[in-house]
Amino acid sequence: MKEALKLGVAGLGTVGRGVFKIISDQAADIRERTGREVTISAVCARDRSADRGIDVSGVEWFDDAAALATSDTVDIYVELIGGEEGIARASVEAALNAGKHVVTANKALLAVHGNELAALAEENGVALNFEAAVAGGIPIVKAVRESIMGNRIKHVFGIMNGTCNYILTTMEREGRSFEDVLSDAQDLGYAEADPTFDVGGFDTAHKLALLTSLAFGTQVSFKDIYIEGIEKVTAQDLASASDLGFKIKLLGVALDTGHGIEQRVHPTMVPADSPIADVHGVFNAVALRGDQVGDVMLEGRGAGEGPTATAVVADVLDIARGFIMPPFGRPTSSLVPYKRAGMRAHEGGYYIAMDVHDRPGAVAAIAQRMAEQQISLESIIQKPLMAGGREESVEKPDTMPVVLITHDTLEQSVKAALGQIEEDGHIARTPRMIRIEKL
Amino acid sequence: MKEALKLGVAGLGTVGRGVFKIISDQAADIRERTGREVTISAVCARDRSADRGIDVSGVEWFDDAAALATSDTVDIYVELIGGEEGIARASVEAALNAGKHVVTANKALLAVHGNELAALAEENGVALNFEAAVAGGIPIVKAVRESIMGNRIKHVFGIMNGTCNYILTTMEREGRSFEDVLSDAQDLGYAEADPTFDVGGFDTAHKLALLTSLAFGTQVSFKDIYIEGIEKVTAQDLASASDLGFKIKLLGVALDTGHGIEQRVHPTMVPADSPIADVHGVFNAVALRGDQVGDVMLEGRGAGEGPTATAVVADVLDIARGFIMPPFGRPTSSLVPYKRAGMRAHEGGYYIAMDVHDRPGAVAAIAQRMAEQQISLESIIQKPLMAGGREESVEKPDTMPVVLITHDTLEQSVKAALGQIEEDGHIARTPRMIRIEKL
Repeated sequence: MKEALKLGVAGLGTVGRGVFKIISDQAADIRERTGREVTISAVCARDRSADRGIDVSGVEWFDDAAALATSDTVDIYVELIGGEEGIARASVEAALNAGKHVVTANKALLAVHGNELAALAEENGVALNFEAAVAGGIPIVKAVRESIMGNRIKHVFGIMNGTCNYILTTMEREGRSFEDVLSDAQDLGYAEADPTFDVGGFDTAHKLALLTSLAFGTQVSFKDIYIEGIEKVTAQDLASASDLGFKIKLLGVALDTGHGIEQRVHPTMVPADSPIADVHGVFNAVALRGDQVGDVMLEGRGAGEGPTATAVVADVLDIARGFIMPPFGRPTSSLVPYKRAGMRAHEGGYYIAMDVHDRPGAVAAIAQRMAEQQISLESIIQKPLMAGGREESVEKPDTMPVVLITHDTLEQSVKAALGQIEEDGHIARTPRMIRIEKL
Repeated sequence: MKEALKLGVAGLGTVGRGVFKIISDQAADIRERTGREVTISAVCARDRSADRGIDVSGVEWFDDAAALATSDTVDIYVELIGGEEGIARASVEAALNAGKHVVTANKALLAVHGNELAALAEENGVALNFEAAVAGGIPIVKAVRESIMGNRIKHVFGIMNGTCNYILTTMEREGRSFEDVLSDAQDLGYAEADPTFDVGGFDTAHKLALLTSLAFGTQVSFKDIYIEGIEKVTAQDLASASDLGFKIKLLGVALDTGHGIEQRVHPTMVPADSPIADVHGVFNAVALRGDQVGDVMLEGRGAGEGPTATAVVADVLDIARGFIMPPFGRPTSSLVPYKRAGMRAHEGGYYIAMDVHDRPGAVAAIAQRMAEQQISLESIIQKPLMAGGREESVEKPDTMPVVLITHDTLEQSVKAALGQIEEDGHIARTPRMIRIEKL
């Protein structure tokens, strides 16, 4: 049998604890599968005395993650600290420079510094694996990097933030407002005290940046992602969507437009009978279309101790078996610069919800503005149908809710029309616009 | 760059053609990903002159697959002939004995001879990869073999035959009989002239046998699978299921009962709001539950040129990268003998549909027989609700349809009760029984 493979784990929060448990409990199975002993030789965490329900007595303790990362007693550095800068970045760089393999769950770090870190891993002939960074327990990194081969990928999209999906699912089911459900989610531990990172779409965008590179062979380019969160979605929008045969999901979408890759994160109306529409609660799902394989979707838990630890362990075992490949599936030098396809050119249908002042000619004037931008309307609903109990008081005494569904059109046309409609003074507040995707 | 990797492809039907196209069209991408040239050096097919829409002019032609499999010009033998015996088996054995890697889409061969062939591959230090054998373009073999690590798997189940799923989906949507929809499916090319292999559940069972070994580390044991096809499912059953909040799917299920692994293929009632219930038409899906990762489901196309060829190419590229592992994820010598958990002990709810003679006391007598076997009933429906146009003439003038839904009970109790009910003479023909799963 080969020499034992020694892990140094930095960060003993939820995921670190999960990794610790699996590596101890499943030692025999892991040895059988890989032909090697895999052990945790060193750990690093903030508080040495905290009770984590795991026995770290035989394990070397480091106070400094960078020292752990470069220690002679470590073959693989498992970075579970998080954050795009600071000690997480420094320790990963140190590990790669020291010729250590790295396994990380840190999407922010890779979304921002992925190109440089991947190049550094290759220079040093080591792995930089990150299955746990995208959609937790769903093996989507491996699927795109190793399974969907020989395909030109047309698009990849997904529900990659359980907090957002829980909030949207609950708002729809119970007809409650965003603020109300968010507050519950915070009490239940599904949302952070500062929820911006999740509900603002940033976490989804980090994951999307990595998926885009894997799927399209482009350099990671987080800064080019259009990001819109779920904060403005109302229970009325969800009810109207439902009446029209749609669900609203926060999607990360990367799509080959033929003249660049469009990357965007925003609330999206998807047909109620599409597989992604049925992904409820904290579950995640990632779907892609290849020119050969057609549509493939993977669904599962995107976060939590067991799912994320499972992904970390899978990455470790690939290394134990000697399966090392470039982080994004091809040499970093051959990743092509990301060429942004502008959102303004995005073509599709739109859902537009407005509070219109209740006076003669207002709706006609609005329809006229849309027509001037060559936007044709699939439907105008002046009194959106709403299931009992779902109504939300967005109406002011003198306004009525109007919902427009457009046929496929350009985003710039919609923005232009809405700008004029606001200027005309027929509506009480900024309209809400949700893109419709029939991917 | 390493030496070119040369494929010998036996069988140039739909899948072979697809593999040929991908290997030619995506040569540059494949070289970039693996650092190696991958080429098709030799082929073998029945008819040398057939027009397949691919250019085989530069490729060596063999009339004998076994000669191709052992040729010096071949590094990987790609077996796309099919069938559990004959030349498929002989050529795969010859290839492995000659130290050639094998990639195959042949589920029958592996379901029946998988243990011996896996051992042979290991003895010779070569790969025996079979992603294409289970659910076509869905990367479930890789997911179970490499991604769901460190988990005790509780169950794995799936819709793994597109023909059956197409038939059941269409029967439900259109309220038509099995025979009627099957005939259409044959005209559309979704079903074979002799459909027994698909609709009888045997194809699903072949795939299940492989999944079971991957998931539970047991020796392949196709012969121990309980198999029941979809031939007896009626449009009335589908309508009744729908009214009760269920869908009927042909599932292959492997489940750790704690005292052995239960393997079975049969029509199954699944809750309408479960992810597997939403898998429509020719799509396949495989779901599993791990003690760490929770529920994971993969959905996609289970057959056809592009999806199956994608899986074959992925297997080839793993070999090109030098990623070789035992066929079932662990050394064949450590696979434990399959210990059958008897179906008679299966515990769950049951749907039972009967044509009861319309005379006083018949239903009471039936209910009494169930009670004698300690079976408690969740509902008795004497006139199943059916949507307009869905009724099928299963009623005889003097009988009425009665549907029973039981609470969890043992299969042997249900069988005993139904035997007695038939003997009592209250029903016009053998009752239809469908197992309910809430996995």
